[in-house]
Parts: sequence; structure tokens; C-alpha cells
Amino acid sequence: MELVDVAVIGAGPVGLFSVFSCGMMGLKCCVIESMDEVGGQCSELYPEKPICNLPGHQSILAKDLIVSVKGQIAQFSPIFVTGQRAVSLERDEAGERFIITASNGAIVSAMSVIIAVGAGAFSPRKLPAEGACKLEGKSLFYSIKDKKKFNGKRIVVIGGGDPVVDWSIALSHIASRVSVVHRRDTFRAYQGNIARMNDLVGRGKISVYTPFSVKEMFYDDEALSTKIILSRAGIVGEGGSSCNTIAIETDYALAFLGSESDMGEIKNWGLSMQRNKIEVSQATCETNVSGVYAVGDCALYDNKLTLLMTGFCESIQAAYSISKKIRPDTSSKKACFFS
Amino acid sequence: MELVDVAVIGAGPVGLFSVFSCGMMGLKCCVIESMDEVGGQCSELYPEKPICNLPGHQSILAKDLIVSVKGQIAQFSPIFVTGQRAVSLERDEAGERFIITASNGAIVSAMSVIIAVGAGAFSPRKLPAEGACKLEGKSLFYSIKDKKKFNGKRIVVIGGGDPVVDWSIALSHIASRVSVVHRRDTFRAYQGNIARMNDLVGRGKISVYTPFSVKEMFYDDEALSTKIILSRAGIVGEGGSSCNTIAIETDYALAFLGSESDMGEIKNWGLSMQRNKIEVSQATCETNVSGVYAVGDCALYDNKLTLLMTGFCESIQAAYSISKKIRPDTSSKKACFFS
Ligand SMILES: Cc1cc2nc3c(=O)[nH]c(=O)nc-3n(C[C@H](O)[C@H](O)[C@H](O)COP(=O)(O)OP(=O)(O)OC[C@H]3O[C@@H](n4cnc5c(N)ncnc54)[C@H](O)[C@@H]3O)c2cc1C
Ligand SMILES: Cc1cc2nc3c(=O)[nH]c(=O)nc-3n(C[C@H](O)[C@H](O)[C@H](O)COP(=O)(O)OP(=O)(O)OC[C@H]3O[C@@H](n4cnc5c(N)ncnc54)[C@H](O)[C@@H]3O)c2cc1C
Repeated sequence: MELVDVAVIGAGPVGLFSVFSCGMMGLKCCVIESMDEVGGQCSELYPEKPICNLPGHQSILAKDLIVSVKGQIAQFSPIFVTGQRAVSLERDEAGERFIITASNGAIVSAMSVIIAVGAGAFSPRKLPAEGACKLEGKSLFYSIKDKKKFNGKRIVVIGGGDPVVDWSIALSHIASRVSVVHRRDTFRAYQGNIARMNDLVGRGKISVYTPFSVKEMFYDDEALSTKIILSRAGIVGEGGSSCNTIAIETDYALAFLGSESDMGEIKNWGLSMQRNKIEVSQATCETNVSGVYAVGDCALYDNKLTLLMTGFCESIQAAYSISKKIRPDTSSKKACFFS
Repeated sequence: MELVDVAVIGAGPVGLFSVFSCGMMGLKCCVIESMDEVGGQCSELYPEKPICNLPGHQSILAKDLIVSVKGQIAQFSPIFVTGQRAVSLERDEAGERFIITASNGAIVSAMSVIIAVGAGAFSPRKLPAEGACKLEGKSLFYSIKDKKKFNGKRIVVIGGGDPVVDWSIALSHIASRVSVVHRRDTFRAYQGNIARMNDLVGRGKISVYTPFSVKEMFYDDEALSTKIILSRAGIVGEGGSSCNTIAIETDYALAFLGSESDMGEIKNWGLSMQRNKIEVSQATCETNVSGVYAVGDCALYDNKLTLLMTGFCESIQAAYSISKKIRPDTSSKKACFFS
């Protein structure tokens, strides 16, 4: 069990900066992060995008911001529990501390809690097709751990972004057949790779079905394979004429539909929420549960802007409020924020 | 007359970043600053101090932060009116715009106003001695514009910081006599220069009177010079024995007692104030006067922290609120903060 002043849930940019703000106030933190890597949206969604709205930076790549903030918090030696979702939040028996349990059973005991979970834990967006959930992990996958499995197989790749274009090119060299299904006519990916994919289409290595959506998937006992029913996008579910419905037999389907995030268990923590966000007082960032704070994209108050700066500032406000509460003697020492 | 969307009063770090935040929302700014140089406390009080509490900066010198923020706002081509205090704020006749008048008579017409004046306009702290105000500008000065004036003269230098130590050394080479008066026993200045000053004291070039305060100053008609009455610090005003009171005749007195800031005319702008700060709603940073916003050290709300980050974030909040009000069509475009 980790015994700390503050448990920070989520290690996106704002969770990391919360460790910094707490550290400046002499508060020791343990951070729980569901991903293996810290950095939240900056690491997961736009590592290579320049950020141009931070004071004192003409421009900084999202991934470099994370490296820098990690450097700033190292001096406070926070404890990191990564690759684990925080699943429960409870008071201890004495009602003095909070007990946070992670998905692997790890336990953190803290005086206060800062929730910095953004829009919740990231996971791949699921294919909204009939029967898809039954095939998940058997013939339907949302990521590729080991591409050898696809040697000589028939593959359907679903989606329209970079991973679809990249993987269909890569798999066309080892699979027996690659079909790409996308519900729009155009792909949103690196132009150079789209051209390479089209070239492979021209040479019969890849088949492209657009604009088509996956309507249904099932295991075909006769063919000993997975059957995927496509319908022309826009008229899903209308039966349709033959040119509006296509059936493909395949060994495997891969869907790359982006990631979505979910507040998951946090909805059961007794926090007052609205539109998947946690209501806080802007002045303290405290939630309706005394001692529990929310900052960054997951925190909600009037006129809230979901920006990095906003979240960073909220983390300072929360750390100051926590310090006033659990270390009243330091309450006047706000100067320690920059001494 | 300058016609803009937003008049920003004060070009400290937060006023400058307000120009940035407004620029991101497509709002054109004119900035009025009472000093010749922008940068506020960062430039005036601690240019060489490293700032270590900004996300993504292990450490940045205050003066370098200002250079960087100036770089960030250049793209928005703000209009600068420097070396001029904003002295009045009024509505125009139609009640649609604000008219801000600067101390030199320059006029700015703006839809909205962001006040970012910190603790008010800086000015040198005055010597609290009887008769001092009558001699100001004649034989008493708070800064040195041209040191040739002191050639061959008797000079008294008052105070205990770097400017006192630096100037007493420099003047000892050209003046006929240099006396230093400080109300404490120790000087708070660069150690190397204190040693050089003590060396000049040892060689009879500088006399030091500590701990002494200036009690009274007057022009001595008989001696055709200024007479300064010192009293031993701590027993000012008690008459005292001879060793507690000293009279020095001098040609000039120089006092370097630091700077102080004053909200001055702003107190007459109809803004609801408390403890020299302007009350705002934290969510919008709007004051009691609709269309007038306050951000940074001068803004007050519950749990307010006077930190750079806090002020930067308030400027974003204010710019967003202004944009929602004067350009309702962009109100949903908060993404322009980072697009
Ligand atoms: C494409 C894109 C570009 C952007 N560009 C900018 C920009 O230029 N400037 C700007 O100011 N803002 C930008 N933003 C917004 C900015 O990224 C967010 O405001 C910021 O990431 C919010 O940080 P956060 O730490 O609150 O949340 P997140 O970054 O979402 O991090 C939350 C973290 O919490 C973890 N987590 C969630 N639930 C749990 C749980 N139960 N247990 C453990 N861990 C959990 C998640 O895995 C995640 O790592 C951009 C956003 C996007 C999507
Ligand atoms: C020694 C010291 C060290 C500090 N270190 C840190 C630190 O490490 N980290 C941190 O976060 N904070 C630090 N701070 C606090 C930080 O400097 C302030 O929060 C910040 O300067 C506030 O910025 P501002 O723009 O609101 O006000 P200011 O910096 O005070 O600027 C206000 C500007 O408005 C101008 N002005 C005033 N009245 C008028 C008028 N009527 N017309 C025109 N112009 C006017 C002034 O001349 C001035 O330039 C420190 C402060 C000090 C004194």
C-alpha cells in the first residue's frame, strides 16, 4: 500500500502538473495512470503536434511538453502506478483518508485525491456492427500485437485513418488478400501513403470498398471463415439491392476506428457529474465530496475551457486548497509556489 | 485615436499574455503601459531571477520570459502606447465603446477593456522625512539621470540595497564627499560590491552612517546647502542625545528606497475594489462594470493566488468572455485557442 498526501488519478499533462503543484506545497503524491505511458492526450492523440498557446513557448511539440513536465516533477519523487486504472475510491474506516484501488489490486491511501482523468481512460472505439462483440479477440481485433499471425491469411481492414492505410500496405506483402472497408469515399491519412495504397489497389494487391459500413459479422460454419456483410453507407439496415450489400469472407478483421474514452467506474464514486464531467467549485477545484478535487478536461464549472493552461492553473488552485486544508500552517506560504 | 477591440491596460507579463489570448480569438488590442519598458514585475523587480513554476520550463529567467511572450504576440501586431499611464476610463456618448485616456492625452477607443495593472503603476518609494517633499527635484533625487551634475559635490546616498552600494562607489570617484545613510546595520546588496564599498570607507572616500534614518531635511541659508538631520534608527522623534542625532551638510541627497506601486486614478473608474484590488467573477474575469475585465495581480476573487500562471489563465478566460460578448459568432470557436 502506498501512503501519500495526495493521490493523483490520471497522468495526462494536468495530472503530471498536479504533482508539480503539490510538490511546491510540500505534498507527496502517488499517480495512477491507466496507460503504460504518461502524457494523456498529448502522448496518445497528438505527440507530434506543436503547441503554440503556452506562455514562454513559441511552439513546443506535445511529446516534448510531457518530457519537460516529467523533468519538473522528478525533484518531488512521486510514486507512479502505470498501466492500472483507478477503479474504486472509498473512505477508510476512520474517515480520515481515502483508499484508492487500482485495477491490479494496488492500493493507495491518501489524505486528498486529485482526479485528472481527462475524458476518462482511453480505449479503442468498437465496431458498431451486429455480432462484432462475439468475434472480438477471435477473428476481430482492434490492434496488432504480432503481425506474423496474418501470414497467408485473408484480412479485412476497417476504417479510414492512418493506421488503416499503413497496415493495409504492410499486410498486403504477407497476407493472401487485403480488403479495406471505409464508410467514406476519402481516406484521412498521409497523402504519400494513400498514393502507395492506391498503387497496390491498381496492382490488385488490395481491394477497397467505399463508402461501405460493416453491417453484420458472423462465423460461417460452412466456409470455416468469418463472413462480413457490408452495406452502402447511408442506407444501412434498409436491406437494399445487391449493389448496396456486399458479403466478404475473411480469416481476420482489423478495425481501426480511433480511440474513445470513458469515465467508467468513476461514475460510481459519488461525484456530482454533468455531461461526463465532474462538477467543481472553480475557486478550489473541490468536488461535492470534501477532499476530492478534479482538474483538467474532466473538471466542469461555468465558462470552463478545456485547454492545457486552464488545467495547469486548476492544478495549482487544487494543490493550494489541499495544502490549506491538510497543512493549515503552510496556508500563508503561497509564496512557496515560486520560492 | 486608436480604434481597437480591446484596450489592455498594463504590459506586465499578464497584460502581454492578454494580447496573445485576445489575438487567438481574433481580437485586436492596444496596450497602454506606464513604464518605458514592458514586462511589469518581471522586468522591474526580478529580471535575473529564474522562474521555475511554469509548465514546460525547468527554469526561465524573468527577462527571457518577457522576451518570449513579446515574440508570441508579435504575430497579432498589437499597438503599444508606452511610457504613459492610463488615467481615465469612460463610456463614449453612444455607450458602445470605452474611451481610455493616457497621461500624454493619447486616446484609445475599445469595445472592451482588460485591466492588468498588477499592484498599479510603479514609482520610487519616497523618503518619509520632514521637509523632504519640498527639496524633491532641487537637492533630493530618487534616480540619477546625469551623474555629471555631482562632480565635485557633497552627496548623501540613502538606503541599503544595490543601487545605494553601486552609486556610492561610482560617485566616490567624482564627488568631493560621499556619505551613506542606512537605517539597518547591514546592506542587502551584491557581496563583492559591499566589500568594495567598505574598502572605500577604510580609505576615507565614503562615510557610512548606520543604523540611522533621515529625520528632517531643510535648506540651510547660512551654509547655502542642504542640512540633513539623522536620528539613530529606532528612536526617531525622541530628541535624543548627541550620539543619537547627527547633522550632515550636503549639496545633494539621493534616496534609493525601492519602488512602490499605486492604483492611482484607477480608484476613480467606478470599479468595485477591495484591498487595492479589483473584484471580478472568476469565471469571466469581468468586473462590476460590464465590458471591463481585470486579470493578473490586480484581480481579486476567492482563493486568488498572485502567480504568473494564475494571471495567464485569467487572461484566457477574459479573452474568451469578451469574444463571446462582442463576437457571438466565434463563441463556439474556443478551439481557436490552439488551432
Ligand atoms: C488533437 C488535439 C490537439 C490539442 N491541442 C491543444 C493545444 O494546442 N493547446 C491546448 O491548450 N490544448 C490542446 N488540446 C487539449 C489538451 O490536450 C487537453 O486539454 C489536455 O490534454 C487535458 O489534460 P488532462 O490531463 O486533463 O487529460 P488527458 O490528457 O485526457 O489525460 C487524462 C489521463 O488520465 C488517464 N485516466 C483516465 N481514467 C483513468 C482511471 N480511471 N485511472 C487511471 N488513469 C485514468 C488517461 O489514460 C489519460 O492518460 C488538444 C486536444 C486534442 C485532442
Ligand atoms: C521578486 C518577485 C519574484 C516573483 N517570482 C515569481 C515566480 O517565480 N513565479 C510566479 O508565478 N510569480 C512570481 N512572482 C509574482 C509575479 O511576478 C506576478 O504575479 C506577476 O508579475 C503579475 O503580473 P501582472 O502583469 O498582473 O502585473 P505586473 O507584473 O505588476 O505588471 C503590471 C504593469 O502594469 C503597469 N501599470 C500599472 N498601472 C498602470 C496604468 N494606470 N496605466 C498603464 N500601465 C499601468 C505597470 O507599470 C506594470 O508594468 C514574483 C514576484 C516578485 C515581486
